[in-house]
Amino acid sequence: MPKRMLRVNMNKLEAKFEDFPQDYMALGGRSLTSTIVANEVPPLCHPLGPNNKLVFAPGIVTGTSAPTSGRISVGAKSPLTGGIKEANAGTTFAQRLARLQIAAIILEGKHEGSDYYLLKITNDGVELINANKWSGKGLYQVYKDLYKEFGAKVSVSSCGIAAEILGTASGVCFNDPEGLPSRYAGRGGLGAVMASKGLKFVVVDDAGAPGVEIKNPEVFKKGAKKLTDALTSHDVTKPGGALNTYGTGVLVNIINEAGGLPQRNFSSGQDDRSENLSGEKKAEEIKKRGGVRPHFCSPGCVIQCSEVWTKPGGKDPVGVLEYESVWALGANCSIYNLDDVGELNRACNDLGLDTIEMGATIAVAMEGGLIEFGDAKGALKLMEEIRKKTPTGRILANGTGFTGKAMGVTRVPVVKNQALPAYDPRAIKGIGVTYATTPMGADHTAGYAIATEIMGVGGTADPRDPKLKAELSRNLQFATAVIDATGYCLFTAFAVLDIPEGLEGMVESVNGVLGINLTVNDIAGLGKSIIDTEIKFNKAAGFTNADDRLPEFLLKEPLPPHNGVFDVPDEDLDSVF
Amino acid sequence: MPKRMLRVNMNKLEAKFEDFPQDYMALGGRSLTSTIVANEVPPLCHPLGPNNKLVFAPGIVTGTSAPTSGRISVGAKSPLTGGIKEANAGTTFAQRLARLQIAAIILEGKHEGSDYYLLKITNDGVELINANKWSGKGLYQVYKDLYKEFGAKVSVSSCGIAAEILGTASGVCFNDPEGLPSRYAGRGGLGAVMASKGLKFVVVDDAGAPGVEIKNPEVFKKGAKKLTDALTSHDVTKPGGALNTYGTGVLVNIINEAGGLPQRNFSSGQDDRSENLSGEKKAEEIKKRGGVRPHFCSPGCVIQCSEVWTKPGGKDPVGVLEYESVWALGANCSIYNLDDVGELNRACNDLGLDTIEMGATIAVAMEGGLIEFGDAKGALKLMEEIRKKTPTGRILANGTGFTGKAMGVTRVPVVKNQALPAYDPRAIKGIGVTYATTPMGADHTAGYAIATEIMGVGGTADPRDPKLKAELSRNLQFATAVIDATGYCLFTAFAVLDIPEGLEGMVESVNGVLGINLTVNDIAGLGKSIIDTEIKFNKAAGFTNADDRLPEFLLKEPLPPHNGVFDVPDEDLDSVF
Repeated sequence: MPKRMLRVNMNKLEAKFEDFPQDYMALGGRSLTSTIVANEVPPLCHPLGPNNKLVFAPGIVTGTSAPTSGRISVGAKSPLTGGIKEANAGTTFAQRLARLQIAAIILEGKHEGSDYYLLKITNDGVELINANKWSGKGLYQVYKDLYKEFGAKVSVSSCGIAAEILGTASGVCFNDPEGLPSRYAGRGGLGAVMASKGLKFVVVDDAGAPGVEIKNPEVFKKGAKKLTDALTSHDVTKPGGALNTYGTGVLVNIINEAGGLPQRNFSSGQDDRSENLSGEKKAEEIKKRGGVRPHFCSPGCVIQCSEVWTKPGGKDPVGVLEYESVWALGANCSIYNLDDVGELNRACNDLGLDTIEMGATIAVAMEGGLIEFGDAKGALKLMEEIRKKTPTGRILANGTGFTGKAMGVTRVPVVKNQALPAYDPRAIKGIGVTYATTPMGADHTAGYAIATEIMGVGGTADPRDPKLKAELSRNLQFATAVIDATGYCLFTAFAVLDIPEGLEGMVESVNGVLGINLTVNDIAGLGKSIIDTEIKFNKAAGFTNADDRLPEFLLKEPLPPHNGVFDVPDEDLDSVF
Repeated sequence: MPKRMLRVNMNKLEAKFEDFPQDYMALGGRSLTSTIVANEVPPLCHPLGPNNKLVFAPGIVTGTSAPTSGRISVGAKSPLTGGIKEANAGTTFAQRLARLQIAAIILEGKHEGSDYYLLKITNDGVELINANKWSGKGLYQVYKDLYKEFGAKVSVSSCGIAAEILGTASGVCFNDPEGLPSRYAGRGGLGAVMASKGLKFVVVDDAGAPGVEIKNPEVFKKGAKKLTDALTSHDVTKPGGALNTYGTGVLVNIINEAGGLPQRNFSSGQDDRSENLSGEKKAEEIKKRGGVRPHFCSPGCVIQCSEVWTKPGGKDPVGVLEYESVWALGANCSIYNLDDVGELNRACNDLGLDTIEMGATIAVAMEGGLIEFGDAKGALKLMEEIRKKTPTGRILANGTGFTGKAMGVTRVPVVKNQALPAYDPRAIKGIGVTYATTPMGADHTAGYAIATEIMGVGGTADPRDPKLKAELSRNLQFATAVIDATGYCLFTAFAVLDIPEGLEGMVESVNGVLGINLTVNDIAGLGKSIIDTEIKFNKAAGFTNADDRLPEFLLKEPLPPHNGVFDVPDEDLDSVF
């Protein structure tokens, strides 16, 4: 069976397979979602109207035995940023879709009534089922119900209550291996796009699926092996290495030490209490409680940075508490207790919310006086306002910029209206260049300069020096766009940036699947072409250089303890692309 | 005494006079506010932070005996649109400021504490007084208290409770001749800029003021006379003419008849019940109740389109109910009762809100299900939410676009995030070109194509024909920018567009005051230079052609009864400037 695309029209409640266009053959993941959005979505359409489209696409090698490659990209015009968006997640959903030879699901139109639907995809066909009985409810219970209904061997994508009220902080949720609603393509409000069309769930059953076609198995195998060797030998990614042992939370102490872990709505870069939130502390607790660590988000991962956080006694599993989530819902809100953070993360997963956006939102609400900084119980109550769809909940569900306006707060950490992640650009400047210039809105994953500035991966760079950061960010953004297209997890970059054979292996594995002949030297150009497509869309949607700027306060308010401001010149920002 | 500028720094709580720069000598009103904002405000600053500035400037001939010239311009970077803003009002405040030879007040910085201040300006000097006791209260009572405190012969500018919560639907308020808080530079959230700095009130006492210097009294007198003759002979502006007899509300029946009076959140252009809101009906009621009609907003007006609307029995005067307000708070919300509209208008005045923005906001809230269409009592309760500063109030106080996002509504009538006024661009297309292209955000006064398309002033044009509307809008926008600089009321345009001697007189009166030699042929170039300054600011703030578009629904949803859509091509819109 050749690759195909599934087009789901919600006006007609019709789902039909289409041939995968020849032009798209070398595309997958982000390169496919961004291309389809650019080709099919009018840049000035209302992002929550019938003319926006939501695209799901597994990566090029996803569903194969290539290591750490279970990523799915989700793309649309973002209702949060107003520009093009790709967010991705690691989940079996990606692998099952790929094994069914479905290169993309294109969700279009808008159901005119008030019903919600579930799209069921099997090897035998597709079906839209009324999903009202699973709507308006928290996703932890709903995922249990759906697995009961459809069996344990399916994958489930969904949007939550926050998306039902079209909250632009809502993400697209995927299952983890335990069937928890914990893996998110979280950023940019893509959950609201899904809900706006009337679709609440996608259930994928790949029983009997043909599997991913590999055009040149020898080349593929050789490449996958070289990449696996790199991943299992690099200090950051190897078994027993930093990510495997402590997860992404290993960065809490490191970034706090560097004075770049934003505290109390970006008013300081360091706080001793941050240690209570560290990966080390968390790993210890998980062991004590009987959670799971290490753990993979999808089978075939050799890094296994994930975990299952639980309440004491191993009860009520949440799923992973990522570094970004722990920072956002913790230090940034002056909350320094992992149990509090775990419950806030549970609430985000349950309601279908981006943890980064919500942590930044709660901190801005705290600064606006809605609750006190450090008030974890108050923060949990705010999350319940979203569940109840109250006016307060509607404010919060629309994210950080929106909440700042509602509460009259001017220290609002957003770029293109998307909240800044867990690295303060006044202390770590290369990541600030990425926040400012990526077409995605503030996003660390778009060009993870932390790797070089803090971790010494792919070279070294002084985090507080503004010089040469445009070049660093540009190179990383090009490489990242390609990785996001392959379906490999971004964390494979740690190994391939330092180990040339790993990078070769990555390219060879893609060549093997597609039957093409890329070389390492093609990566930058490919990455550039993806980002060019995205920037072109954003320009047509009205973006200019003025949108490639950090908020004013980061340029004016010094950040303790180093008291730096973000001083990369505008010309450098404009030189990135 | 030569003209001067008053610079008020709210960080230092310091108000100092400065020489009026030679470069600015020929500027006033909008040309002065826009020039100062362009020269002094960083385009990317936070509009509610310390780096924005709020500028008050009376027009060039304001304070003289020139007819119908009591306008004051207020300018800043708008927190509603993110672009440059000028809004103006007719009020004795303008005249007193001009007679004190104050060409501009420049309000800058931001008071760091939580106190509010009152700026008192007399011929003897200026003073900042703590104003906490007059804050957090409705403006009708506060204006009574202020007139008691400062005497009847002062003028008062203010911002209201909506501005205290930094609501971007808040306007800058001025007194009418009765001392009511009813004359607004309403649009663009300028009230929030004022409140953000810690200033709540400006009180101007012009006792002993030197008066406006007139460089060439002969030329001035001759010009003023010619303009007065035009105003008193044109059908629209003459005593006993349309505006004098019925006020701006004379348009209700006319625009409804044309199918362009938006009903029920822009879902129809006509409703028989609109007659209940007409200027004819209102004039009759005012007579019955013992209100005032005709009436001037400031002495020296020969048109006198204003009025004092009251409750039955002549009680509780509101001030004027303009056509725009009656439409916004009436027909657009399916409310067809003048008493209801009067109370909603009172609430807007009392809270410091733009009636156009609030009417559009309430209609969007109705569409989002917060209350039912037509529910006047419910609408009044919503206004009380703003007074109580509740989360619902904070949503509404931020205007139409914001409320649309909070409520998940996609039929949201805004351009540059500012609500569309009372003419549907699907039925009257030239005004749609103005909405789309003016640097101000959707604003009918920026280039009032209705004059030609509906009233046959300055020529005629078929309102439903998309052709040649770019040219019509451009010419009107240039002329309007100049009128907004002179201090003449925009309504003088009805006469001067049709009567060449009137236009000559207008130019001569300006020549007389300034001692210069402009001709009628200079007007377009002067207007262009003002708008160029504004567009340059907006470009630096990140605006592009994509911002010069009407919202998608106006291009897609036909408007009953004529079932047209807005079909002026994008190329025509882009050809305006």
